Amino acid sequence: MTNITAKNDWLDRFGLSAGVLPKGARNTICDVKGVRVGHVTLADGDAQTGVTAIVPAPGSLFREKLIAASHVINGFGKSAGLVQIDELGTLETPIVLTNTLSVGDCWRGLSRWMIGREPTIGRTAGTVNPVVCECNDSFLNDSRAQFVTPEMVDQALTDAGDQFALGAVGAGRGMSCYQFKGGIGSASRVIEAADTSYTLGCLALTNFGEMPEFTLGGQPTGLEADALLRSEPLREQGSCIVILATDAPFTARQLKRLCKRATAGITKTGSIIGNGSGEIAIAFSTAQRIPIDAKGELKLRAMSDTGVNPFFRAVIEAVNESVISSMLAADTVTGRAGHTRPSLREFAGRVAGLPAESR
Amino acid sequence: MTNITAKNDWLDRFGLSAGVLPKGARNTICDVKGVRVGHVTLADGDAQTGVTAIVPAPGSLFREKLIAASHVINGFGKSAGLVQIDELGTLETPIVLTNTLSVGDCWRGLSRWMIGREPTIGRTAGTVNPVVCECNDSFLNDSRAQFVTPEMVDQALTDAGDQFALGAVGAGRGMSCYQFKGGIGSASRVIEAADTSYTLGCLALTNFGEMPEFTLGGQPTGLEADALLRSEPLREQGSCIVILATDAPFTARQLKRLCKRATAGITKTGSIIGNGSGEIAIAFSTAQRIPIDAKGELKLRAMSDTGVNPFFRAVIEAVNESVISSMLAADTVTGRAGHTRPSLREFAGRVAGLPAESR
Amino acid sequence: MTNITAKNDWLDRFGLSAGVLPKGARNTICDVKGVRVGHVTLADGDAQTGVTAIVPAPGSLFREKLIAASHVINGFGKSAGLVQIDELGTLETPIVLTNTLSVGDCWRGLSRWMIGREPTIGRTAGTVNPVVCECNDSFLNDSRAQFVTPEMVDQALTDAGDQFALGAVGAGRGMSCYQFKGGIGSASRVIEAADTSYTLGCLALTNFGEMPEFTLGGQPTGLEADALLRSEPLREQGSCIVILATDAPFTARQLKRLCKRATAGITKTGSIIGNGSGEIAIAFSTAQRIPIDAKGELKLRAMSDTGVNPFFRAVIEAVNESVISSMLAADTVTGRAGHTRPSLREFAGRVAGLPAESR
Amino acid sequence: MTNITAKNDWLDRFGLSAGVLPKGARNTICDVKGVRVGHVTLADGDAQTGVTAIVPAPGSLFREKLIAASHVINGFGKSAGLVQIDELGTLETPIVLTNTLSVGDCWRGLSRWMIGREPTIGRTAGTVNPVVCECNDSFLNDSRAQFVTPEMVDQALTDAGDQFALGAVGAGRGMSCYQFKGGIGSASRVIEAADTSYTLGCLALTNFGEMPEFTLGGQPTGLEADALLRSEPLREQGSCIVILATDAPFTARQLKRLCKRATAGITKTGSIIGNGSGEIAIAFSTAQRIPIDAKGELKLRAMSDTGVNPFFRAVIEAVNESVISSMLAADTVTGRAGHTRPSLREFAGRVAGLPAESR
Repeated sequence: MTNITAKNDWLDRFGLSAGVLPKGARNTICDVKGVRVGHVTLADGDAQTGVTAIVPAPGSLFREKLIAASHVINGFGKSAGLVQIDELGTLETPIVLTNTLSVGDCWRGLSRWMIGREPTIGRTAGTVNPVVCECNDSFLNDSRAQFVTPEMVDQALTDAGDQFALGAVGAGRGMSCYQFKGGIGSASRVIEAADTSYTLGCLALTNFGEMPEFTLGGQPTGLEADALLRSEPLREQGSCIVILATDAPFTARQLKRLCKRATAGITKTGSIIGNGSGEIAIAFSTAQRIPIDAKGELKLRAMSDTGVNPFFRAVIEAVNESVISSMLAADTVTGRAGHTRPSLREFAGRVAGLPAESR
Repeated sequence: MTNITAKNDWLDRFGLSAGVLPKGARNTICDVKGVRVGHVTLADGDAQTGVTAIVPAPGSLFREKLIAASHVINGFGKSAGLVQIDELGTLETPIVLTNTLSVGDCWRGLSRWMIGREPTIGRTAGTVNPVVCECNDSFLNDSRAQFVTPEMVDQALTDAGDQFALGAVGAGRGMSCYQFKGGIGSASRVIEAADTSYTLGCLALTNFGEMPEFTLGGQPTGLEADALLRSEPLREQGSCIVILATDAPFTARQLKRLCKRATAGITKTGSIIGNGSGEIAIAFSTAQRIPIDAKGELKLRAMSDTGVNPFFRAVIEAVNESVISSMLAADTVTGRAGHTRPSLREFAGRVAGLPAESR
Repeated sequence: MTNITAKNDWLDRFGLSAGVLPKGARNTICDVKGVRVGHVTLADGDAQTGVTAIVPAPGSLFREKLIAASHVINGFGKSAGLVQIDELGTLETPIVLTNTLSVGDCWRGLSRWMIGREPTIGRTAGTVNPVVCECNDSFLNDSRAQFVTPEMVDQALTDAGDQFALGAVGAGRGMSCYQFKGGIGSASRVIEAADTSYTLGCLALTNFGEMPEFTLGGQPTGLEADALLRSEPLREQGSCIVILATDAPFTARQLKRLCKRATAGITKTGSIIGNGSGEIAIAFSTAQRIPIDAKGELKLRAMSDTGVNPFFRAVIEAVNESVISSMLAADTVTGRAGHTRPSLREFAGRVAGLPAESR
Repeated sequence: MTNITAKNDWLDRFGLSAGVLPKGARNTICDVKGVRVGHVTLADGDAQTGVTAIVPAPGSLFREKLIAASHVINGFGKSAGLVQIDELGTLETPIVLTNTLSVGDCWRGLSRWMIGREPTIGRTAGTVNPVVCECNDSFLNDSRAQFVTPEMVDQALTDAGDQFALGAVGAGRGMSCYQFKGGIGSASRVIEAADTSYTLGCLALTNFGEMPEFTLGGQPTGLEADALLRSEPLREQGSCIVILATDAPFTARQLKRLCKRATAGITKTGSIIGNGSGEIAIAFSTAQRIPIDAKGELKLRAMSDTGVNPFFRAVIEAVNESVISSMLAADTVTGRAGHTRPSLREFAGRVAGLPAESR
């Protein structure tokens, strides 16, 4: 139902821009070498939800960890695993996205996946820190039914590849963005720094905002949510999960600085980061691995802070484009209780800032 | 297998002191009116684990939330729910303790419990923030088997009362403290402030430390872990979960200050808060409730910061006593692969600072 | 050199908008009743700097403190006093703004001002926490000369009133924004919530950004810094100080949430919150006072978090307008080594998004 | 008035222990190679105060920065410079300690010292982040008079060497600890890790606690403050500044973990980290330098987190010994209004846990 495109060119198709930096070859998070993404999607009546898995690097993340950081933009959220990322500055599992009330099932699924692959967990090597993030898809999905199963995590991880669908798929199946259909968006940017070419990629799970807030190109779209779109009184209960990947060798402290710039990428589309919206960013670097049995001194690379500005800009642009592409890529979905979220594409040519698709 | 005592007098029995403030009637967290605790214990061969539920107050926590805060002392831990506590300063579910690899199952159990009681979750009222904390009991328990089920959360919540067992029970069944048997400890203190009597209670899940570090009354106990106790090479992989309850009307900011003092209560027993130990504190106040549909201005009570010192002292004393009582209350347990953790009581009269039981 | 206007209508004059919420009567931070602002300006050759004092409320702030919070957006900054604001959630002095290398002199000036008025400081009442914030005006000002004196703090505090100049005045005298002249900006918004009318005001000291980043109305202005503007190689070394005042009775936790939304207001003008830019926000509520000798329980008002969204929007709009108004209000300044920063007004009618002044 | 000893053996002299790790050759912070300390002391009537400067490494800290971190244990304090340390993870000036109300003068002194040595400050290289920490010595010193001058900072920095006095000297001149005389303490520990020998040193400025809290060797000393000691009603207004130095190549994230363990070292002497006590820790590593003009990638060493426990223990021991040595080293001081703080040494042989000096 959603196109898997070799290149994410949703913004180009509608003549939209999200900054000045060059985009990567696929214009997704998978432009960072080794990153893979997989979806499992439920799309049947009241079940409009799913799982999206981000596999940050090949090999055993548990035995060879990645440097990582997280940042809570607004903590009305139930993400699991952030505490340990912050303390140790490492990521040791894939990242799983789902709907809010399925965090427990995905935690179980991801822990079982790790236990199955790592015989030392719970024996000689301590435990494992599963990272599960969520948004609330209750408008379109009967989240109370907790449709997601641990097995779906296995499936998403098994299916993960370097090409993946955007829009109303995986964890994004039931999500809403500015009362349009939201879901999974992505983008990437290429940064030239000190004679080296680096890539920064973003994957966003978008589920926030009210229609009158929505801006394109800095301008209000002029849309008002009408009765059709707003079929029941809805508490503002959004969220946006931002996953940032880069092959530049940042430290955990620096990756946290990158995470903080996600705020600008989100709010440029109009959001006020509302009270009920759980905005969380996680960033990891694929540049080097920390062995679980490291002893004594490690030799690490790090970027100098004085050169970090192009990466800050890349974060803002990639997050911004990820949000917009999640909306443009998403098909209209009708789900629980007949609720509908229309695709933003349906409004092309009729909305300020969104011309008709040119190709 | 463990006595449910009307009063937790474990320290008195061994002539030990943990400070100068008066203790509450039961000397447990349940001296704070309305707090209830329930256990489900698995004690069969390789299954030495369980669930402990703390119900902070009567009625619907979801519809009438408690003011709360958390503090991460050392974040090598997988606790769920802290992000939202920190953002909103409220607690809206009971707190469930378990072993590390069972966080997902308890999350599911607690979410189902809440969904079953609150028809607006996932409909008009957004989602719910289950709070699940953990320690790693893999030495005595086959944690890879994930024995804990969501149904056990229901059972622990249903069974919760104002009297509960200490030691090798519930989530504490498989825990180790300074290579002795650890588990569930508790204590309380009464604070007189400005002509009012307040109570502060603590429940601790203890699972940290190496034997040579252990001190009683500020003095090293002189114990060395021998071959019997340390039957396999063990990575230091501890944790200590501290739950603080009080009937004093603190704000979230102030409750966080209380949480921070838990560090002193733990380290006074010898711990260095090791790298692999997930030390987390959560504090809540039962003094007032925040309605879910609150609008406009609320009238709240708050303690003045200038009078907070007796509460800081109470936290340190109650945490310190909770740790020691968790060890004194615990019976010896033999579990997975024949591993054994002996009761500290067996060493009474033979260890510096621990006289024989006097009654 | 800069107009003191009864109403800050800089955006209106140029047909610019910064949101949808109604503005206060003066459209400055002084729309929050009791807030006063005073400037001392040095404008002579290489001395292009000054002091701006924000007096948050009448009476003794030391004996009757305000509830307050701060948030570090990007910590490349030297602001003093934030640590205690965060711990205690209170503000007990006016806030003084100046250039970076004059923080020490202003700290001394503000401490002397407080000591002179409060005989218990350093005697029975402990010490005092002066709050001094800064930006780096070294492009236009010879900051190495440390022209600012403690006496200038006295003067600014003495002169403070509910009308004050915007632009190249006070601490803003030597500041640059997007390589135009920046300085002091302000704005306010009126929020109707639960049948009550509240005001939120902002004062910003703006000193950040590079010209190609600058956007108006969400669109790049198309300006390129040419040789004239960029007369020497300049490290990006900005900063933006945001002071938020409100008469709504928020708690410290809630005021911190307000502070965090300042990021959106700043980045909507194009900034990436660069590495070398010290972005700091401080918020205080004038709604209630905390007596220094408070004992036992206090009765406080608090806003419900569920109604906070209009205030989040007000922060974003007021910060955004404060930044733009700081530029529109500022006259061109030539200072140290003949460096010049032109007024943005000079480009009206020639720049995308900035029409000619209509009145 | 206080001995400059080649080796800090105050605990040994009184038969006291502070842990199990070996001490460095001098048992001060200067066992970390390159660290130097200098004092300027005012000791005349109501002027009982001073300045202590810690020079962390030779050469230009501004052009070749040290990796560093800070941690606020309790933020009732006015320390300057922490915001930037946390953001950038570097230290670029010496650290100056003084009394609370002299922070401004020391900030000015330290900024002038830096400006005098670094011609690029305020020109091409941005500004500088002076680090000034403080405790409140108002009981013995007339802090309202602000006796400390910027020139005293110069003097302390000029005089800094690898031998320095402990006790009632420098910034410690007017400080009180548990109502005895406190001041400057120090200690060091040697850590063998992965075939390498590292050193961790601590310098503490102690000014906290009430006499009945004071414990030695984990036992209450049994002392009660009598009328002589407590000659006026005194608000608890303490503070403890902890400076940690090491030659192990920790990252900023890891140094922050070290800072957090200072809490245990302080509270083991009895403190509850009271409301009015500003407890701050700063840690730096001398192992490597970050050039101000670094571009692109850096090659850095880092310790593995799995081996950090001996360093955590070293912090606790060194902080604990620093506090006690600050008291044992200090002579009795009589200052403002005839107030007196007696030397703890006067109570040797009369106090539980403190035998008579044996040599």
